[in-house]
Amino acid sequence: MFKVSFPLQNRTVEVEAGTTVLSAEIAAGIRPNAPCGGMGVCGKCQVGILSETGERETVLACETKIDRNLTVFAAGEEHHKILTDGAGEFDKLAPAVRAVSLKVEKATLQRPTSDWMRLKEAVETACGVSIRPDPALANGLGKTLEALDYAPQAILYRDELLALRKEGRLLTAAVDIGTTTVVLYLADGETGELLATGSMLNPQTEFGADVISRANYAMQHTPKELSSAIRAAINELLDGALREANASRQDVYSAAIVGNTCMHHLFLGIDPSSLVLSPYVPSIAEPLVLDATPYGLSINPRGKLFLLPCIAGFVGADTASVMLACEYDRIEELTLVIDIGTNGELVIGDKNRTVACSTAAGPAFEGAKITFGMRGAAGAIDHASIRGGTLSFSVIGGGKPRGICGSGLLDFAAAMLSAGVLDETGRISDPEDLPKDSRALGERIRTVDGLRCFVIAEENESETGACIYLSQKDIREIQLAKGAMAAGIALMLEYLGKKETDLQKVLLAGAFGNYMNPESACAIGLIPAKLLPRIEMIGNAAGRGALMCALNEECYLRSAKMAAKTEFIELASNPNFQDRFVEELMFPEEEE
Amino acid sequence: MFKVSFPLQNRTVEVEAGTTVLSAEIAAGIRPNAPCGGMGVCGKCQVGILSETGERETVLACETKIDRNLTVFAAGEEHHKILTDGAGEFDKLAPAVRAVSLKVEKATLQRPTSDWMRLKEAVETACGVSIRPDPALANGLGKTLEALDYAPQAILYRDELLALRKEGRLLTAAVDIGTTTVVLYLADGETGELLATGSMLNPQTEFGADVISRANYAMQHTPKELSSAIRAAINELLDGALREANASRQDVYSAAIVGNTCMHHLFLGIDPSSLVLSPYVPSIAEPLVLDATPYGLSINPRGKLFLLPCIAGFVGADTASVMLACEYDRIEELTLVIDIGTNGELVIGDKNRTVACSTAAGPAFEGAKITFGMRGAAGAIDHASIRGGTLSFSVIGGGKPRGICGSGLLDFAAAMLSAGVLDETGRISDPEDLPKDSRALGERIRTVDGLRCFVIAEENESETGACIYLSQKDIREIQLAKGAMAAGIALMLEYLGKKETDLQKVLLAGAFGNYMNPESACAIGLIPAKLLPRIEMIGNAAGRGALMCALNEECYLRSAKMAAKTEFIELASNPNFQDRFVEELMFPEEEE
Repeated sequence: MFKVSFPLQNRTVEVEAGTTVLSAEIAAGIRPNAPCGGMGVCGKCQVGILSETGERETVLACETKIDRNLTVFAAGEEHHKILTDGAGEFDKLAPAVRAVSLKVEKATLQRPTSDWMRLKEAVETACGVSIRPDPALANGLGKTLEALDYAPQAILYRDELLALRKEGRLLTAAVDIGTTTVVLYLADGETGELLATGSMLNPQTEFGADVISRANYAMQHTPKELSSAIRAAINELLDGALREANASRQDVYSAAIVGNTCMHHLFLGIDPSSLVLSPYVPSIAEPLVLDATPYGLSINPRGKLFLLPCIAGFVGADTASVMLACEYDRIEELTLVIDIGTNGELVIGDKNRTVACSTAAGPAFEGAKITFGMRGAAGAIDHASIRGGTLSFSVIGGGKPRGICGSGLLDFAAAMLSAGVLDETGRISDPEDLPKDSRALGERIRTVDGLRCFVIAEENESETGACIYLSQKDIREIQLAKGAMAAGIALMLEYLGKKETDLQKVLLAGAFGNYMNPESACAIGLIPAKLLPRIEMIGNAAGRGALMCALNEECYLRSAKMAAKTEFIELASNPNFQDRFVEELMFPEEEE
Repeated sequence: MFKVSFPLQNRTVEVEAGTTVLSAEIAAGIRPNAPCGGMGVCGKCQVGILSETGERETVLACETKIDRNLTVFAAGEEHHKILTDGAGEFDKLAPAVRAVSLKVEKATLQRPTSDWMRLKEAVETACGVSIRPDPALANGLGKTLEALDYAPQAILYRDELLALRKEGRLLTAAVDIGTTTVVLYLADGETGELLATGSMLNPQTEFGADVISRANYAMQHTPKELSSAIRAAINELLDGALREANASRQDVYSAAIVGNTCMHHLFLGIDPSSLVLSPYVPSIAEPLVLDATPYGLSINPRGKLFLLPCIAGFVGADTASVMLACEYDRIEELTLVIDIGTNGELVIGDKNRTVACSTAAGPAFEGAKITFGMRGAAGAIDHASIRGGTLSFSVIGGGKPRGICGSGLLDFAAAMLSAGVLDETGRISDPEDLPKDSRALGERIRTVDGLRCFVIAEENESETGACIYLSQKDIREIQLAKGAMAAGIALMLEYLGKKETDLQKVLLAGAFGNYMNPESACAIGLIPAKLLPRIEMIGNAAGRGALMCALNEECYLRSAKMAAKTEFIELASNPNFQDRFVEELMFPEEEE
């Protein structure tokens, strides 16, 4: 078995030797661009591959058989075009922290100016910046300059001198702190090259699966343990990425950090209790440029952290980052972005006006309240369909299923609805009421613990030996999530004075958005059915936005402007929300 | 015995009950303003007295008998007029760190803006400042605002919010770090009142008496011990001042700090070795506004430090502070300032142009290389004269002498020269060559350890039982100091294209400058004799400059401008210095 990583989609699969890269993409739940169906004809499935020894090649995914551990990028993505991914002007590299080569004058008796002043003059000559004095760097400066032959490289953030050194690598990190998953990208600030990517479970999960339970833990104790846990996790990812890139933490002078408001606060060591108590306000939402050291990140001790701004208590820096990745400040057409992670954030707008809200849609799709729900990991059913009364599904990593992840849930709900197993109120039918075509599914409808269920895998078909099913209660959870999301979209449109049909584009961000079947989302009414042709998947846009900020200061500044301009709707306080929510609980009537 | 302190002159004496304040002033080496000679007629000897119980009174020094421990100020000085002492416009109180009362809006579901944003809006409304975000203060901000009834007082430095609190005192400290003595002033930032003053020996003395030996110690070890020692000393003075003012360190939000360049570097923890190795450059000389915490000062942990700028390796922030106290940027007449501490710094100029230099004049006057030299403490002979062949002198604190301090040395040299004990080459005469009037002094001229000496106190006249004398070598030391100083003045005038007679004023700063007899200084040629009528004593101008900066930000900014504009002459590298120095070693020929 070989390990195949897709860093930009934040996914890894294990496949047998001889599997094609195209098959690995499919196994990883990535929709390959292969219009010819893998016949080696269209040439569109080109990807970049990077082996562990550092060799890079551009190959056709359908023709390349896997014979070693590989990292796979969309073609060209491995270079700094990662920034251009759907975003026209981001291939301009202009990180906030930069390296400048200096020539410093030696002190003489004729001109016994301070070491700092001569250094300052050199920086001014080299790049026109008047650096602010810093006693820590001034200590021993004469000896430092001498050791560097009076030709040091200065690492600068605006008018702050961060370090003097010989020439070296200038690296930058981007971190997306999800409630469930933490992703880190390590990039070269001078070439824009993505050097390594890593992800891991957010270790705060130990203190509670969701934002609310973690905020409660912090309120009852202190935020300290939660802060330490996330900082340690980022350091672990950073260490791994540095090993992969054969680089030193000393060379990492900046990190851009995004996360929902609670993750943002906990990373900073801020008590998140105000987020979960009415009126749900952040303690601080402004974009923050901070010294790395007090926050325990093991980048260069003089490095800077760039935290993207939060928009509201439940619309965080991750949403600001998604908006940046979508370039909301340049969008001409009315666009809806749906970012479903542990929470579901929605943004509607264009370059003139944007509005954002948060719904509680996430937990169901992350498996939190679903009997056999689980995250999109090995053993999870990620896609399913019912054709001619026959149920079929795919399991991440192959083999027998252990549970159902978000995209699978959506597919099951859509398929059950289409097959008449569910009616539009969400009730699981009596076996005898099933339409003729679905009669064979009747044996799957049973009662377990007093609840009507739809069996997906019998005991002998499941990895754990337990029968896997969706209960009536599970379906209700899906309805609640779907209702919240659909009501949110409707209210935002109303707020903007727009109609569904005014929406020109629907962008699905986040891991779940990337793997879910848009047809299923539309079939159950999570997204208005009319918008199906306008749906695009944009992957981990929050991570991409963070990386854009790490590589381009202008992007960071744009994210601040976008966040400040974005209007926020608090659904809970909106008098129309409950009505609309109840209305949207119903599944759409079948249109077959 | 009662203790009488003169905080502004940095002097304390013990006197017997019933002594008048005027006598105490004289005992302390302070020249009282008493033209009527203490007859209670002129009313000019008015002073403010402060008893330990906190009572304040304005009294006539000549009429007030001491019956308790007292602190004595020049009349009115105890209030903020300290700032106006010789400096027209400094009674404007405008400290850099200020307190502003706020009204902060409560968060609501209708406007769930972040706590920081609502605080920021309140500051903007109150004083037009847009504060920069600070995660440390944002932590728990909602609860803080609630606890302060949404009407907190903000402590601000420019756009930095330092603290939120209920109303309270806003204190500020000024520190003058001398090589030998450390002085601290504690003042009220809202009234300008001087609350307490303290001084102590610089504990770094343990590592070396002068700047060079301390720099050597730091080079051989690290600057750490020296830094810790001075920081601990400042904290000790601060603690004492706070006790005296019945105040808490939490209320001290700023401190202005001055000292020579080596003291400045050591306070900051900067290796001072570049100061003592050619070309004698500071590591950093710029004015510095710093967070207090990293420097270990026990003021409010969020407080700020204001370090005045240094001018060169041997012309430090203390000189910048003296220049501020003299308002060099407003002086119309060509003015010479002489600040003799452990080193002797000279400034000549006016508001258009200033030049500074440093001479090694100090150590002799601090007693370092003089056989019976000592600091101006109890037991030191501080004034002396020879009249009609009779030697007389005064001893600080009364009683038998232990040694001779700088002002005493100067008086002895002048008196010996005038009495013909010294010729103009500095040689101590043979007893038989003494002029007739001085014949009685012959018995004081002896040979000790092979060196000709002039005996000042016989064994039975001295505190220690040892005979106190000035040796030929001691006289040579005085000549070297005098030669360096006079050569410096001559070269600076030459540099400016000016003559001695262009000097309109000579200001004597520093403890030594305050106690020495200007007639003696002119008699031995330390100061050109023609300038005698233009000499003024200005006391601890360095400390006063620091206090001005603590109480008025504009003063701090002016000191930065003055220092940046001041030209520096390195005497050592000046080709004319040696010539001039040798020429100036000679004492002036007697003009009697």
